[in-house]
Amino acid sequence: MINPNDPSLKSWIEVPQNSDFPIQNLPFGIFKISNSTPRAGVAIGEYVVDLNALSELGFFNDLFYNEGSLSPVVRNVFNKEYLNDFISLGKPVCSEVRARISELLRHDNSELRDNEKIRNKVLYKTQEVTMHFPVKVGDYTDFYSSEEHATNVGSMFRDPKNALLPNWKHMPVAYHGRASSIIVSGTNIHRPKGQSKADNAENPTFGPSKNLDFELEMAFIAGKRTKLGESISINDAEEYIFGFVLFNDWSARDIQKWEYVPLGPFLGKNFASSISPWVVTLEALEPFRVEGKVQSPKPLPYLQVSQSTSEQADKKNFDINLEVYIEPSSPQPSGEGAIKLTKTNFKYMYWNINQQLAHHTVNGCNINVGDMFASGTISGPTEDSYGSMLELSWKGTKPIKMPDGTERKFINDGDTVIMRAYGEKNGVRIGFGEVRTKVLPAL
Amino acid sequence: MINPNDPSLKSWIEVPQNSDFPIQNLPFGIFKISNSTPRAGVAIGEYVVDLNALSELGFFNDLFYNEGSLSPVVRNVFNKEYLNDFISLGKPVCSEVRARISELLRHDNSELRDNEKIRNKVLYKTQEVTMHFPVKVGDYTDFYSSEEHATNVGSMFRDPKNALLPNWKHMPVAYHGRASSIIVSGTNIHRPKGQSKADNAENPTFGPSKNLDFELEMAFIAGKRTKLGESISINDAEEYIFGFVLFNDWSARDIQKWEYVPLGPFLGKNFASSISPWVVTLEALEPFRVEGKVQSPKPLPYLQVSQSTSEQADKKNFDINLEVYIEPSSPQPSGEGAIKLTKTNFKYMYWNINQQLAHHTVNGCNINVGDMFASGTISGPTEDSYGSMLELSWKGTKPIKMPDGTERKFINDGDTVIMRAYGEKNGVRIGFGEVRTKVLPAL
Repeated sequence: MINPNDPSLKSWIEVPQNSDFPIQNLPFGIFKISNSTPRAGVAIGEYVVDLNALSELGFFNDLFYNEGSLSPVVRNVFNKEYLNDFISLGKPVCSEVRARISELLRHDNSELRDNEKIRNKVLYKTQEVTMHFPVKVGDYTDFYSSEEHATNVGSMFRDPKNALLPNWKHMPVAYHGRASSIIVSGTNIHRPKGQSKADNAENPTFGPSKNLDFELEMAFIAGKRTKLGESISINDAEEYIFGFVLFNDWSARDIQKWEYVPLGPFLGKNFASSISPWVVTLEALEPFRVEGKVQSPKPLPYLQVSQSTSEQADKKNFDINLEVYIEPSSPQPSGEGAIKLTKTNFKYMYWNINQQLAHHTVNGCNINVGDMFASGTISGPTEDSYGSMLELSWKGTKPIKMPDGTERKFINDGDTVIMRAYGEKNGVRIGFGEVRTKVLPAL
Repeated sequence: MINPNDPSLKSWIEVPQNSDFPIQNLPFGIFKISNSTPRAGVAIGEYVVDLNALSELGFFNDLFYNEGSLSPVVRNVFNKEYLNDFISLGKPVCSEVRARISELLRHDNSELRDNEKIRNKVLYKTQEVTMHFPVKVGDYTDFYSSEEHATNVGSMFRDPKNALLPNWKHMPVAYHGRASSIIVSGTNIHRPKGQSKADNAENPTFGPSKNLDFELEMAFIAGKRTKLGESISINDAEEYIFGFVLFNDWSARDIQKWEYVPLGPFLGKNFASSISPWVVTLEALEPFRVEGKVQSPKPLPYLQVSQSTSEQADKKNFDINLEVYIEPSSPQPSGEGAIKLTKTNFKYMYWNINQQLAHHTVNGCNINVGDMFASGTISGPTEDSYGSMLELSWKGTKPIKMPDGTERKFINDGDTVIMRAYGEKNGVRIGFGEVRTKVLPAL
């Protein structure tokens, strides 16, 4: 069987040079065409493949026939508002579906290529479709796993000499976030209102946040459930991970600062988080595995990955380039649309996803398919690789100059924040598309 | 029309003297009888009324007929795993359903009383049924709204002279909890494992929690959704509240203490929370409204309830007695089963439910039907009215003596923790039943 990640694969669908979606990617999402119901699709180049249509036309029959008849549950997984039912079929089935799609799209396969009538039923131009939120999120957890980010924040708000708190190097610190307010790329948000208190003021005041910020994160989506009381061993963690999206954890720094002691972030975060619409499978990211930093002190045994026989399998970080752009509401004099604010990499994470999931469930906390686990802000080692305005402008003390002469300490009304992510290896670029959110004035 | 809360109402079903479920209560829940699917029911005395059967037999037709035909959506709301579809019909409809049930159960109504065949189809003895989890919880929030609890915790862990943090009297502090691990009364839990660090130790260790604790709380359930960006005004908040359950926010104090700075409680809480199975409607609690404490400093305007013309409507706290019992695995010499640990009252809350919901949504955070909002530990002003072992044993320094000579600083393996709640007025007791959870050894 052909490996769908093989860099030499080509599709009969033309994929532009810099596309995030070559035949080696095939990320899953939920899309809608006018007058139809939402359904599952896969992105390739500038097209979306309708998986529900493929399924109805019998292209998955070989995979889904069970004892001679098509399971009705399986038949209907693509005709849904969310990917959860599909993902719940399990990683082996999802993997077979991806391989079958790869086969159908390959340059030397004529099943779709040479049948215009069928092609018209299953292929849509990206511009023709609206992307929906891809999964029903049960619970959403936000980690805090970048050492550089935690160090920066600790330096700014506590003590530069003891920037990391005592627990930080012993566990992937995390908190629960709000699932209801996670939105898909393209959805505008309003600047949140809330309480904040100036350092020299006696009492708090109420009003629109003055320090609206993004946080550049990656998030993984659970592909398998556990029961209450069960723990996931660190070596099994990847069996429970379906794929990734790019994640903007919107933060109102002034609201957060006043409210967060002692129980953590709440209204400073739960007004919105934005994700990219396409779920890139863990499988598609295999080529980008790299080793993480050496962890010192050595974590407790439940957070240590056993040495495996495969060198590749011991690599638990991923070399994925991450970028944030800002697009002001008025055009910049240079003619530039989006201005790059930062460039960093997912590989900088101190705690990896296996450790995150092992820690999360070590007390028996149960997870469900569709649960979302964000990395926490990903900052790199240099000043131009930080993952939030808080760090890039160093709490507003180093404003960022824009081409039109304006400055940004935080995000202004009218600004659109765009995040992009992609890995590149052997001439193949596996990308996430973008997460794009425009900030409107407070209501 | 007769008020279903009228204290003079009697049912043709015999209701024992001390029952939590007189005809004035009629709480909603999800139950199962052997060989059937889960369905909605109402508790009365020692019976459960099958709402799906009542609906199928046409007893709600007058309520649900719409332009001459029964809406299929409405017809099927009771034949579900959760109450969400029923609750989503809106408070006016839910209120009419409760009034209709009250009418059918009244001593002078013969529709069910004198029809044994129908009675046998809709009435089950409590012992015959299994109670299920009543709602699908989207997001779960835990407040921290008891001044006595926050003061006790602040005194123990920080500074008795500045026990309350600066923000506490300005906002109902809260954090997001884990929805997946909320379980219904009767479900056993295992003692969680995790990291903790002794004060004098250099490094953390891993193992079963040594300080397993309960937290006595009430939780309200959202009955109406909002869209992202919308805020609920404090004066409208009750329109969004369907009812209440009793809530045990299980806590592993040693795990919590080591992990919670700076992002709040995580594994110290998310291994389990237990709720009572019957949702008591806000409507049934009307007789128990009382005024809360005078708040000083005066909160910001968005947290101030407008003076209304009705004296009753200005009362935003509820006089509900709360009790916690412990039932050790071996019988006590006195023959006692459950030993009372504490008795307190929901009326002690500093921040009321209107303030909680107004605060939660002031930044535009959206809520969904079924979302759960717990009060935080409810402690009273005296040492015998604290809502957690942490406070009752004052961090383990004042162990509680049991009749069998053993002591409790925290909860032991084999102990069953039982919480009860009820209001009593004009000879009518509106109760919540109980939330009962046995602690098994760590896995």
